[in-house]
Amino acid sequence: MSVRETVESIQLVDNHAHEVRPFSEDLTPERFASYFTEGPESYHARHTIHYRNAIDVLSEYFGVNSEQEVLDRRADVDFEAFSRDLFERANVSHILQDTGTPPDSSPDSFRRYTDAEVSPILRVETEMEPLIEASDDFSTFVSELRDLLVDAVQGPCVGLKSIVAYRTGLNISEPSRAEAATAFDEVKADWTGRIEHPVLLDYTAHLAAEIAGKNDVPIQFHSGFGDADAHPRYVDPGYMWAFMNRHPETDIVLLHASYPYTRTAGYIVSVLENVYLDLGMTIPFVQHGTHGVIRQVLELAPSTKLLYSSDGFYVPEWHYLAAKRIRADLADVLENLIEAGFLREAYAETIARNVLRENARRVYRL
Amino acid sequence: MSVRETVESIQLVDNHAHEVRPFSEDLTPERFASYFTEGPESYHARHTIHYRNAIDVLSEYFGVNSEQEVLDRRADVDFEAFSRDLFERANVSHILQDTGTPPDSSPDSFRRYTDAEVSPILRVETEMEPLIEASDDFSTFVSELRDLLVDAVQGPCVGLKSIVAYRTGLNISEPSRAEAATAFDEVKADWTGRIEHPVLLDYTAHLAAEIAGKNDVPIQFHSGFGDADAHPRYVDPGYMWAFMNRHPETDIVLLHASYPYTRTAGYIVSVLENVYLDLGMTIPFVQHGTHGVIRQVLELAPSTKLLYSSDGFYVPEWHYLAAKRIRADLADVLENLIEAGFLREAYAETIARNVLRENARRVYRL
Amino acid sequence: MSVRETVESIQLVDNHAHEVRPFSEDLTPERFASYFTEGPESYHARHTIHYRNAIDVLSEYFGVNSEQEVLDRRADVDFEAFSRDLFERANVSHILQDTGTPPDSSPDSFRRYTDAEVSPILRVETEMEPLIEASDDFSTFVSELRDLLVDAVQGPCVGLKSIVAYRTGLNISEPSRAEAATAFDEVKADWTGRIEHPVLLDYTAHLAAEIAGKNDVPIQFHSGFGDADAHPRYVDPGYMWAFMNRHPETDIVLLHASYPYTRTAGYIVSVLENVYLDLGMTIPFVQHGTHGVIRQVLELAPSTKLLYSSDGFYVPEWHYLAAKRIRADLADVLENLIEAGFLREAYAETIARNVLRENARRVYRL
Repeated sequence: MSVRETVESIQLVDNHAHEVRPFSEDLTPERFASYFTEGPESYHARHTIHYRNAIDVLSEYFGVNSEQEVLDRRADVDFEAFSRDLFERANVSHILQDTGTPPDSSPDSFRRYTDAEVSPILRVETEMEPLIEASDDFSTFVSELRDLLVDAVQGPCVGLKSIVAYRTGLNISEPSRAEAATAFDEVKADWTGRIEHPVLLDYTAHLAAEIAGKNDVPIQFHSGFGDADAHPRYVDPGYMWAFMNRHPETDIVLLHASYPYTRTAGYIVSVLENVYLDLGMTIPFVQHGTHGVIRQVLELAPSTKLLYSSDGFYVPEWHYLAAKRIRADLADVLENLIEAGFLREAYAETIARNVLRENARRVYRL
Repeated sequence: MSVRETVESIQLVDNHAHEVRPFSEDLTPERFASYFTEGPESYHARHTIHYRNAIDVLSEYFGVNSEQEVLDRRADVDFEAFSRDLFERANVSHILQDTGTPPDSSPDSFRRYTDAEVSPILRVETEMEPLIEASDDFSTFVSELRDLLVDAVQGPCVGLKSIVAYRTGLNISEPSRAEAATAFDEVKADWTGRIEHPVLLDYTAHLAAEIAGKNDVPIQFHSGFGDADAHPRYVDPGYMWAFMNRHPETDIVLLHASYPYTRTAGYIVSVLENVYLDLGMTIPFVQHGTHGVIRQVLELAPSTKLLYSSDGFYVPEWHYLAAKRIRADLADVLENLIEAGFLREAYAETIARNVLRENARRVYRL
Repeated sequence: MSVRETVESIQLVDNHAHEVRPFSEDLTPERFASYFTEGPESYHARHTIHYRNAIDVLSEYFGVNSEQEVLDRRADVDFEAFSRDLFERANVSHILQDTGTPPDSSPDSFRRYTDAEVSPILRVETEMEPLIEASDDFSTFVSELRDLLVDAVQGPCVGLKSIVAYRTGLNISEPSRAEAATAFDEVKADWTGRIEHPVLLDYTAHLAAEIAGKNDVPIQFHSGFGDADAHPRYVDPGYMWAFMNRHPETDIVLLHASYPYTRTAGYIVSVLENVYLDLGMTIPFVQHGTHGVIRQVLELAPSTKLLYSSDGFYVPEWHYLAAKRIRADLADVLENLIEAGFLREAYAETIARNVLRENARRVYRL
């Protein structure tokens, strides 16, 4: 079997994805395009190479030849069958689901749309917000949050996830319990329903990392690009250096190839034994850049540190396009490295199995 | 018509350039080379690939075969004819001229050297300095500056430009009027002729952005590499995040591909509807890196967000080399993307027209 | 002679390397792999492309076909002969040795293992620590340090080296003598044997740069990636901007291509006449990324600003692999640039001679 055939045949573990949903509104081009960008629904959203490529792939799928025809067909699909078909073509055996968004997500509701195994990952900040609402004092809040996280990781959850990058950034300080208690009081005094206080967010990020480490599950961190909530500087994983060194017993997964800080992330995971790097969202968003992203992470990162995900959200096309893209370009990169004398074929196949499947099984104890 | 033929035939809009001038001094190799670098006139300036390529292109132009012969021929050209010929070969139909430098620039003086249409863009900081000199108090200064900028953008100017990146950096704070007034007094107390006070610069950057937005013209910001005045960290457009979010109604153009923060800039323009990315100076300076820069910006940026410029200054070779380079490499990139299945030919031509001409016409309301 | 033949035949000057040593412990795979990463000895260390390539190269060298056979042969080599053979194959004529590590390094001990000429470079921080120990007050310390550095650079040392990047980062402030004296007292009051006080480190970095400049030798700075001591943000050479501008008379060499801040470093050396960029450790660590690193530095950096080194440490394989990699990929890059019309063959050969040999001879006055 050639390296490409091996890459094509591996059943993927998608270590970070969201559930899919049928459209409940009219499918305008701008609306459809908005699922293929982190930007707003706008004229520009239809003009990325990622969206154009999605239209091309769907044109082939539906046997049509224009954006409008794709939209017409897409609006009329039997959504459950359509979604199951795309996941089957993606050949994903196991999805680790971020249940933090869209609202009311759960493996049960996701399973309507995929035959893959689905395991939940708990998003810390989303869980915190109702507890802040319900708790009169900091001690109660912390105690409830701790119980909730411990129950989750000792129960069905295969990991935790933090979106602190989206709220205040990866420059995570180490507040004392007293400082966090004061922050809690400030938050309660002016509660908006959304936690954005850096001291409380940073304190709970440490708490979550500690619980993850003690219970032998990893914690994921959004890193790199995202929507307008994410500050382009504070999503640099270099800001997490003290945090990552403070929790050597906790496996930390940096999501999204930390794009555009991809080479920095590769350097970090090559130096810190407890840190891993996921490639999701960046692949497939960057399209023709995928080849370069894979090559760049392999410059320093051990192949045992890299993980596949789609970060697929709402539309199953996303999960499908990610799988298709990583297979095509990982095979390309490995073939090129063999041809140029950097790798032998046997080890290239080890890299493929590690990145697409085995590393996730090991890191998440699946 | 092939994609390459389309790219070659499009009349360029150069959204950021300076006027050209005949040499008034001896043309030593070090002096000539200094126009092809942001570094000082030195031994090293002759040793970039950009300068070597310029000599090769000019050798062909003059039909000679050495650096010295190029310099001899160049010293003897009929400068008006030489310049007009290079602009004609560049096939530029419209130049948006930064009149802030060289001194005494204006479309009228530029038009001696090019048949292209020339529209002025006002450099805010250069205009501020005489007003600081002339104003006794902050209220007068602000009122005069406001009048000047409004008159400009309601008159001939198609946009504003800020070089705050060169003075104190893109980490633009949001000072109050009172803070700005205090800063004005400090500046006046020790006036050097050059405005370098961060509070006053940041205050006026906001003022300029507000005026641009209200009058439907964009404001350009130097970003990315430049000469020794520009701090290599504070030219990162990530520092402008709060500023860009504060002026959603103002179109902001990041100049120079924000090199080396190019991928960060691509991410920003993909997320913020009001921000655009120009590719000038980086192209042609990076030469063989042009291909990679174009590919990188197309990873996330919509093709409707990208603009061509030369940033040509003083020597018309610069304007010509920029046009030649972007045409050659944009055609290469698009051909490669079609061949690799990322794009269809029709949309590749749309990208070419957008980047080289149509986006500028739309953004600057030409 | 083709460009490739020229590149292959140039005798290298390795401007930054450490001495080699025979193994004194059992040669497990994890232990051997730890010499090919900046990360810890671990399961992951065996899974970089750099290590896999090293095993492939050594398999060919020993005529065997597995990692275990390589380790068996390697454990049994006549180390002096093995090392001399690798340096001869590397065709290195002159090595500038960082005598700061491993302990008890010196050109004399290095010369047992190589026939190349070896000249010492003094690591400032390593020399400071015994002087802090021995000095009762700041005046004595500074006076002793100054004497030691002046004697070194007026004697056998061809340069100085600072590892301030590893201790507190390249964000070097400019403390007054009084501030440094206070810092010295703080350090003495709680002396650990290791200097980590930013004020004292920054003060002495300026002192060393001043001495280097006055004595016409360069000072090297670790920049870019390194082991877990180096903070991934504060190894960005952009942080050194004020420092580099403060010492225009001192030649400063940024080590390790400042990876991943390589394009930033290229921009810096293109603008500041006194700053140079070394490519060591990044080459060979990034393996298939070498091609891209060389292309990226040549985007802006004059070819007269780039230097070769191995940063080889402990195992002579490192020194050998670095030489092999730069030759193969520099030749590739130059051939590609000629073919694509960016360079003429004669100047490509000048670049090769500059980068591999002549720039080091000029910068270090060899």
